[in-house]
Amino acid sequence: MGTNDIVKFEALSPAEFFRRNREIAGFSNPTRAIYQTIRELVENSLDATETFKILPSIKIYIDYANQSRSWISIYVEDNGIGIPGDEIPNVFGRVFYSSKYRIKQHRGIFGLGAKMVVLYAQSTTNTPILVRSAPLRSNVIYEYQLMIDITKNEPVIMSQRTMENKYGWHGTAIRVVLEGDWSKAKRRVEEYLRRTAMVAPYAEFVLRGPDEDDAIKIPRVTTKMPDPPKEGLPHPKSVDVELIKQLIQKNPDLPLLEFLTENFDGVGETIAKTFIDFVGLQPDMPVGKLINDELINFVTKMREFNGWRRPRADWLSPIGEDILAEGVKFVLRPEVVFTVTRKPSSYMGNPFIVEAALAWGGAIEPSDNPIIYRFANKVPLIYDEGNDVIRKIVDEIDWTQYKVKFPAPLAIVVHICSTKIPYASAGKEAIAEVPEIESEVRNAIREVARKLRLYITRKEKEQELLMKYAIFSMYAEEVVNALSYVTKADIEELRSSMTTLIKEKLKIRRFEDLLNNSLSSEDENNSEAQDHEPSS
Amino acid sequence: MGTNDIVKFEALSPAEFFRRNREIAGFSNPTRAIYQTIRELVENSLDATETFKILPSIKIYIDYANQSRSWISIYVEDNGIGIPGDEIPNVFGRVFYSSKYRIKQHRGIFGLGAKMVVLYAQSTTNTPILVRSAPLRSNVIYEYQLMIDITKNEPVIMSQRTMENKYGWHGTAIRVVLEGDWSKAKRRVEEYLRRTAMVAPYAEFVLRGPDEDDAIKIPRVTTKMPDPPKEGLPHPKSVDVELIKQLIQKNPDLPLLEFLTENFDGVGETIAKTFIDFVGLQPDMPVGKLINDELINFVTKMREFNGWRRPRADWLSPIGEDILAEGVKFVLRPEVVFTVTRKPSSYMGNPFIVEAALAWGGAIEPSDNPIIYRFANKVPLIYDEGNDVIRKIVDEIDWTQYKVKFPAPLAIVVHICSTKIPYASAGKEAIAEVPEIESEVRNAIREVARKLRLYITRKEKEQELLMKYAIFSMYAEEVVNALSYVTKADIEELRSSMTTLIKEKLKIRRFEDLLNNSLSSEDENNSEAQDHEPSS
Repeated sequence: MGTNDIVKFEALSPAEFFRRNREIAGFSNPTRAIYQTIRELVENSLDATETFKILPSIKIYIDYANQSRSWISIYVEDNGIGIPGDEIPNVFGRVFYSSKYRIKQHRGIFGLGAKMVVLYAQSTTNTPILVRSAPLRSNVIYEYQLMIDITKNEPVIMSQRTMENKYGWHGTAIRVVLEGDWSKAKRRVEEYLRRTAMVAPYAEFVLRGPDEDDAIKIPRVTTKMPDPPKEGLPHPKSVDVELIKQLIQKNPDLPLLEFLTENFDGVGETIAKTFIDFVGLQPDMPVGKLINDELINFVTKMREFNGWRRPRADWLSPIGEDILAEGVKFVLRPEVVFTVTRKPSSYMGNPFIVEAALAWGGAIEPSDNPIIYRFANKVPLIYDEGNDVIRKIVDEIDWTQYKVKFPAPLAIVVHICSTKIPYASAGKEAIAEVPEIESEVRNAIREVARKLRLYITRKEKEQELLMKYAIFSMYAEEVVNALSYVTKADIEELRSSMTTLIKEKLKIRRFEDLLNNSLSSEDENNSEAQDHEPSS
Repeated sequence: MGTNDIVKFEALSPAEFFRRNREIAGFSNPTRAIYQTIRELVENSLDATETFKILPSIKIYIDYANQSRSWISIYVEDNGIGIPGDEIPNVFGRVFYSSKYRIKQHRGIFGLGAKMVVLYAQSTTNTPILVRSAPLRSNVIYEYQLMIDITKNEPVIMSQRTMENKYGWHGTAIRVVLEGDWSKAKRRVEEYLRRTAMVAPYAEFVLRGPDEDDAIKIPRVTTKMPDPPKEGLPHPKSVDVELIKQLIQKNPDLPLLEFLTENFDGVGETIAKTFIDFVGLQPDMPVGKLINDELINFVTKMREFNGWRRPRADWLSPIGEDILAEGVKFVLRPEVVFTVTRKPSSYMGNPFIVEAALAWGGAIEPSDNPIIYRFANKVPLIYDEGNDVIRKIVDEIDWTQYKVKFPAPLAIVVHICSTKIPYASAGKEAIAEVPEIESEVRNAIREVARKLRLYITRKEKEQELLMKYAIFSMYAEEVVNALSYVTKADIEELRSSMTTLIKEKLKIRRFEDLLNNSLSSEDENNSEAQDHEPSS
């Protein structure tokens, strides 16, 4: 048997696999590695704060650790819920160990980021990661220096201590030293933070680079926060055979009825009974008794059945129209912003919500196409725009029907949140063409575009009115004088009547509206956000 | 400590991770899953044949397994080196177990494909994979039906038997049943095979679909095969700290000198001594004695040192100019093909070779831009062309300087082979902008473009000659007649002299060349490949 000699087979640990293929996780070169490190740590920090209704305060300090070797030290600190002391080694030192493998909306997707940071630091500078963390109401702060035993996929604890938590701090602070090129990564990191702030205006960021002028402070613009997502059960339409088998294994004696009501979202007794009847089985049959073909049929039918409730949106945490408007206003400084949060929808049992903002004028530079900002689960998507269904939809829209003539100062922000974002490629930078999502994105953009048309129409009318008013007023004074001379009537009275007459003719309700050049007074509900229309 | 209540941590097995995130490996929807399955199995088949100098014969049979459930059965059979019986369960049933984790050029990169196929089949139809395999010179054929215990990341053997290998077969045959949409996947699969044939014209493929007209046979066009890649040691410039630490652990007592000569490519005693001197250490120091800072310094210096040999190209297996020309000629049916295989080059210690083909005219439809076919380690890259450095370079070229006026019937094929392909994104569909590779791609394309210019120039000249010859001949007969009348000389002799005179004036060596409309006779070496110039 010659084959054993020519081909050698071997097993890799997950840690070794990702060390060798770090490009998969975005650590492809020294510039990208810095960007990716900061991004992973910041997203963990946001997950650890906003998910628990804590207003995020995130500090990022960059320093040269060894300039001749281009070693960079990256420190990221948050005020989140912290990590229990005994979980810290595994969370940072074991690939495929995470709190993010649950059905709810996370920024992080794979629970892989922190480990990749440790692997990259270790591979380039052989230095451990420093982790300091205090859970909520903890009396102590835990500190670890950790590396990964890559062949065993296990954490190696280099040092460990606990300190008194004198000031009741909670959160996590990380310091890593890795090889990288800060001067090249800097602009990308700044753009990333700017875009993140757009959808998280309730967070504050301090970025301090190694050089004098390298400090950026993005303040908190609002203390309103979106409701955090709840953790969910799988929707019966989103299952596959393997998941059902895993659930059966946990408790094979469970009757079918309970199996359905206990393991799936939105399945009450009535629905469960209807479904079991639809499949042609008995409600009290133990689920473990399903033979293979019955099992397959059961799963197929689960996906075909139309009687399930719609997937729940509680697992999702949209930004919300007001917060999104504030974020966009702060970052883009436009003349006006319109936002919409669509109702929840779903594809293949996965709930999703589309939000859109349209920003117009002000500091937005006119360009030949709408500027697009894409977000998935509050994470900015920066690459691969050409492949994205959002770009496609924006390009398909006939903007002249919304009174937009390019070049125009127009930016479109689209946020999709879901328990499962359908990416077009493994690069996770573009959204795939799922018909349900496509149609929601189109509707969201149209909705804000219609508001823009209304806005532009009103502005045009106002402009016209202002012109007419100016002309009428010019002649009015002459007419008033002439009338006063002929009729001997009081000139002040005449002038006042004339003004009323002009206002009536021009249908101006309040004179100030014209000069304000604002639309707020015409809104039905005079909310404080004057340029933000509530959606219908 | 409230945190343990709000956040739950858990470990996933690698199999469970990839089951949940199958989009990462391209199994994102039922159409893509079929394409990806066939692609993974075909690439394994090609690796199991051509790498061992076996002319690949690959059969792909698609059938409806259960039409009402849209279950598709996919069967792929090759004549490769087979898999040893006792390795079969792990090769198909354990994620991160493979023969591809070695430094040499593979089509497969992650050794993940076959497991993803099993995971996908299992998740959608709960059916095992059927594997039949016979290694070279094996007396028996092994047959397994396998599934994966996803929570344990272990193969589950559903059935197992050995059969007598009566006819001395060797190879591997796989059958899987999965959910998918063949009608949508079909065109993509065909295009994939067509492109694969372009760079592997020594392979034959039979694709038989479930419907009558669904058969494609791509014949073997040549029996010439590229030399298979050798397996290599890492180049000293491509190391990172973690790799050095792993090597040290294996044998910490090894003196520095032997450590270098035994573990790295192209490091002889002289070079090793020069390097150790450069670092300021002693050759007989046991490598395990390096303390942390010395170790880092050692690795940093390894990457800085300029005295290493260039990385070896034996690990690579370029297609070669002749084979590439035959493949392109067969698939694109152009008027002419020019090919070049550049000399090996390297980036960050990773060797690579760029090959290019330019195909012109014939069955190629004229278009406004060159049509581009991209390949990495003989695998066609189909998505994400806009992001690719090859597209960028082709667009930068001023084609008028090569006498090309668009729309033109021009196709450019670029193949990059390397032990490490630098992909631009985790999608593995676009090559990143590595300066060394960029410059090689540019040179390769320029080289074939210059050949095209020469070809077009010659064709223009021939066209001109043909015109002149036609005009001269028209008048020659009259002149011959007149001369014969005046001088009474023999008309046949005069006609012959006149023809010779015209040929001399027009510098036509052989008359037939003109009518052939071919350039072969002007080539210095009259090889059989008349439209394929050898590179200089």
